[in-house]
Amino acid sequence: MVLRSQQFGYVLRPHFKTHQSLDIADIYRNYGVEHITVSSIKMARYFSDRHWKSIHIAFPPTQRSRGSLIQLIEQVPVSLNISCAAHIDAIKGIDGITALIDIDSGYGRTGVPIEDETAIDLLISELEFSNIPFGGFYCHNGSTYHQPSLSHITALHDKVTAQLGRLKEIFSKWNPRIIYGDTPGCASASSFDGIDEVSAGNSVFFDIYQYHLGVCSQNQIAVCMVCPVVEKKPSKNQVIIHGGAVHFSKDLVHMNGNVSFGSLVKLNNDGWSTIETEASLISVSQEHGTLQLSEKTFNSLSEGDLVGILPVHSCLTADCMGEYISFDKHVWTMMKKQLHII
Amino acid sequence: MVLRSQQFGYVLRPHFKTHQSLDIADIYRNYGVEHITVSSIKMARYFSDRHWKSIHIAFPPTQRSRGSLIQLIEQVPVSLNISCAAHIDAIKGIDGITALIDIDSGYGRTGVPIEDETAIDLLISELEFSNIPFGGFYCHNGSTYHQPSLSHITALHDKVTAQLGRLKEIFSKWNPRIIYGDTPGCASASSFDGIDEVSAGNSVFFDIYQYHLGVCSQNQIAVCMVCPVVEKKPSKNQVIIHGGAVHFSKDLVHMNGNVSFGSLVKLNNDGWSTIETEASLISVSQEHGTLQLSEKTFNSLSEGDLVGILPVHSCLTADCMGEYISFDKHVWTMMKKQLHII
Repeated sequence: MVLRSQQFGYVLRPHFKTHQSLDIADIYRNYGVEHITVSSIKMARYFSDRHWKSIHIAFPPTQRSRGSLIQLIEQVPVSLNISCAAHIDAIKGIDGITALIDIDSGYGRTGVPIEDETAIDLLISELEFSNIPFGGFYCHNGSTYHQPSLSHITALHDKVTAQLGRLKEIFSKWNPRIIYGDTPGCASASSFDGIDEVSAGNSVFFDIYQYHLGVCSQNQIAVCMVCPVVEKKPSKNQVIIHGGAVHFSKDLVHMNGNVSFGSLVKLNNDGWSTIETEASLISVSQEHGTLQLSEKTFNSLSEGDLVGILPVHSCLTADCMGEYISFDKHVWTMMKKQLHII
Repeated sequence: MVLRSQQFGYVLRPHFKTHQSLDIADIYRNYGVEHITVSSIKMARYFSDRHWKSIHIAFPPTQRSRGSLIQLIEQVPVSLNISCAAHIDAIKGIDGITALIDIDSGYGRTGVPIEDETAIDLLISELEFSNIPFGGFYCHNGSTYHQPSLSHITALHDKVTAQLGRLKEIFSKWNPRIIYGDTPGCASASSFDGIDEVSAGNSVFFDIYQYHLGVCSQNQIAVCMVCPVVEKKPSKNQVIIHGGAVHFSKDLVHMNGNVSFGSLVKLNNDGWSTIETEASLISVSQEHGTLQLSEKTFNSLSEGDLVGILPVHSCLTADCMGEYISFDKHVWTMMKKQLHII
């Protein structure tokens, strides 16, 4: 992704919600990354002592955010997403926060519809009236995750980046920057006209979902769950592993008409094999997973053996596990969850 | 569940994988619970300093388990599940562990098929040969989770408990105990003939899934996620909350032909309202959730308001969050996750 950013001339501002790890943040730093994206104020604070040039919070503020935002901006330059007057009210009077208008390119989750220039114009005026710097537009083009093929993904990418380019022209008076993210498009497309920064995050690990989209090769998948075989079911060529919904979460892909919660690889000393195409993690309950195998693979495994499972959705699997172990046997920490008393 | 255990004359041995909390364990102790069920050796160790009369690990051992099992049995009497020779090998020579044969009543996950008396007989012989005490049968009748109605659940419960009663007769020479679990059946059925202990665990909280099965009333649901409204979408009567797959996991129920990841309640000082039947958490991504609302409820909410979401699957939601806050504003801790370097 660093090479792509150099090739296409944009700033890589990776989303750190995928890995949530200071150790992995340091790897990015070593590759020259200086700006990052996060999904919460808490996550911004977790990463804030690493001297980033700026942190973008790709999430809108509410009145509840004020106290922690005020603390945060003393440590690092911050921008965040807004898409309505309530978000502007929430940051009014806090010096030093830049607002980007969240743009909905059709994904339907958050943001102002990409074609609604009137609403955008009104928001820019409200920002000016509130003395809040308008930084540009943020767009997570999440519909790329639901395209039937790689060519559909790049076509959608090209369409949305062109629409964003048009917004940039219309509102050129304010010299807006475009922060654009989504791993499927940004890892595979070859046109980034008008895009100033790319915030794709899943690309740090990729996963089986991205592999099935055609976005990455299988040897680019960088996280693997190591699970012990705990029981064999000879009548069905299935093995039960200690690895379930509390480890993988419950995202799935459809493969040959069946659902799969992960793909099997064989572990070796410095990595893992290619995917066993005839094997699939066909179901997960809380702690157990059921692997459907070919007879040959079934016969090669015994209770107590360790197998590798490449996760369907690496972000959720990482979040479930709470830390990583690297191949040189270091524990890489992650941000800890903590509830707030209200 | 304590009252039911007194009414039906079985020992309540609740599964603690649902809550994973010493604070909630202490509540059980105050209700007189003395025996517990867990899903891993690690979880047994976490709970082991609370002086239980015994802990049953409803999970099979492998050779990798020996070291931690040897440490564990110095602290508390332990039983565990076995279903094949490899499991027996794994505990051979460790004094003081009782083995229960895991019985598959049709759920298809782990265990010896309930009708396979030959395999059971062989396992008992192998246990005797290895000088491992045979304690009886463990059965998680998980198919109750997939029944179309409450009467189907109780019918299946009655069928399986009768089959287990028959096993008890056939193998009466060894005076086997039956540990039987699954919240849908055990929270609703009224026949427990032959069942010595009940290990249902989800009943500590219940959730929207159990409510939809008809197993609990909605005012028996005991966990709620408090989420801020972060954005309103007037054209669709939707609000976006900060509450997604990293908070709820991704289990869902089908409601009126649509999927739902949770149900909306209004928070008040000492609890929450009944479920807003016209509202539903219709989608979750990593950090965001989309609530579909009636126009009236939509109009009553503003950015920054807190709403309550009752989770579809309380076990996974609790596991995602890692702690609880009680109504008297105490933090209740949970077992921490930790990877093992291999």
